[in-house]
Amino acid sequence: MSAHDDENKVPAALFKVPQPTIERLSAYLQCVRTLRDEGGETASSAEIAKRTGINAAQLRKDLSYFGEFGKPGLGYDLRALEAHLSRIMGLDVERDVLLVGAGNLGRALSSYAGFGRRGFRIVAAFDIDTEKVGAAMGAVPVYDLTQLSRVNAEMKTEVGVVAVPAGAAQGAVEALVAAGVRAILNFAPVSIKAPSGVTVRNVDLTSQMEILSYYLRSK
Amino acid sequence: MSAHDDENKVPAALFKVPQPTIERLSAYLQCVRTLRDEGGETASSAEIAKRTGINAAQLRKDLSYFGEFGKPGLGYDLRALEAHLSRIMGLDVERDVLLVGAGNLGRALSSYAGFGRRGFRIVAAFDIDTEKVGAAMGAVPVYDLTQLSRVNAEMKTEVGVVAVPAGAAQGAVEALVAAGVRAILNFAPVSIKAPSGVTVRNVDLTSQMEILSYYLRSK
Repeated sequence: MSAHDDENKVPAALFKVPQPTIERLSAYLQCVRTLRDEGGETASSAEIAKRTGINAAQLRKDLSYFGEFGKPGLGYDLRALEAHLSRIMGLDVERDVLLVGAGNLGRALSSYAGFGRRGFRIVAAFDIDTEKVGAAMGAVPVYDLTQLSRVNAEMKTEVGVVAVPAGAAQGAVEALVAAGVRAILNFAPVSIKAPSGVTVRNVDLTSQMEILSYYLRSK
Repeated sequence: MSAHDDENKVPAALFKVPQPTIERLSAYLQCVRTLRDEGGETASSAEIAKRTGINAAQLRKDLSYFGEFGKPGLGYDLRALEAHLSRIMGLDVERDVLLVGAGNLGRALSSYAGFGRRGFRIVAAFDIDTEKVGAAMGAVPVYDLTQLSRVNAEMKTEVGVVAVPAGAAQGAVEALVAAGVRAILNFAPVSIKAPSGVTVRNVDLTSQMEILSYYLRSK
């Protein structure tokens, strides 16, 4: 497909976009959804800036990585901006997800409504605990961790979630990578390593708690 | 205590500091801990900027809200910077935390190692499910949600965590606020309202997944 097949196409050279830009795009998208939920149809970059705490010049610069969008002075059409941002983030397709860890956190994640609503579907879980293996969590089958590569040879899922204790996290990541997973969300409170070409996001639940702590201190 | 009692004292007028600054301070603190874990003793603002993706001028400006810190040209002493940031964030005290929701996510959070390591201790949990009430989760007692105000009249805990389904989140927040809680971490995938004077942080597990999605799209 040539670059001219679709005028809304996202440019191919995405790997040049800095990671903080991607994180801000996610914040803009969240903001646009909230504005639309509130019944909004258009918004200026200043309004989005105020909501997200990211300044308007930065917003325009971040969007400019992906070609022109919006007309100066008219504000953004929120429906079009949501579609544009969703396409940039690759959210215009459904994605299957593998879960390692069928403990309390794994169970919570397998039924987390937020994932399904955004097109992420946990299709299989893996654990080393033989008491958990074989007993499905809701609609999600639980396999022995040693079966990960075999199961994913058919599924060809590229996204994995790690929900195991800190000491088991590195092993879980290695098992996912060996099975062909290229993007991993890690909930274990430990830094993990992955080979180049594999993206890992560490979800640090404590950092949000620390930000809360600031507001207690300052009152 | 006057402003001169302690030269490291954080200025009182903290309410003027913008929220994005507080979020960046959390990122700097995380970065400093990682550098120290790797054996580092000092770092330039340029190094911290490179790691966090936040530019060095912004780092210096953010720190400047809290008085002078560091000497130009010498880089930061990482131990001192960690202590300074921890004090700013109010992390130099231990904090008790109330948990609403004793389901899978609540159970996972009550044993999440990351919280304890940073001085946050879940001391009591609350649920509406009579089968969960009375059965402790590890060392954490589980009370009926209707007992929240009574229990906290003694505990006087100011921090709460909401780990209930979306439909029950607003009610959980109201129960916490009525019991005197002023800072709430919300894990339910829904936006909740709190009166002014109460800080709510929404933990959106999906936004991290969406950022991962970008990296799959762009490969």
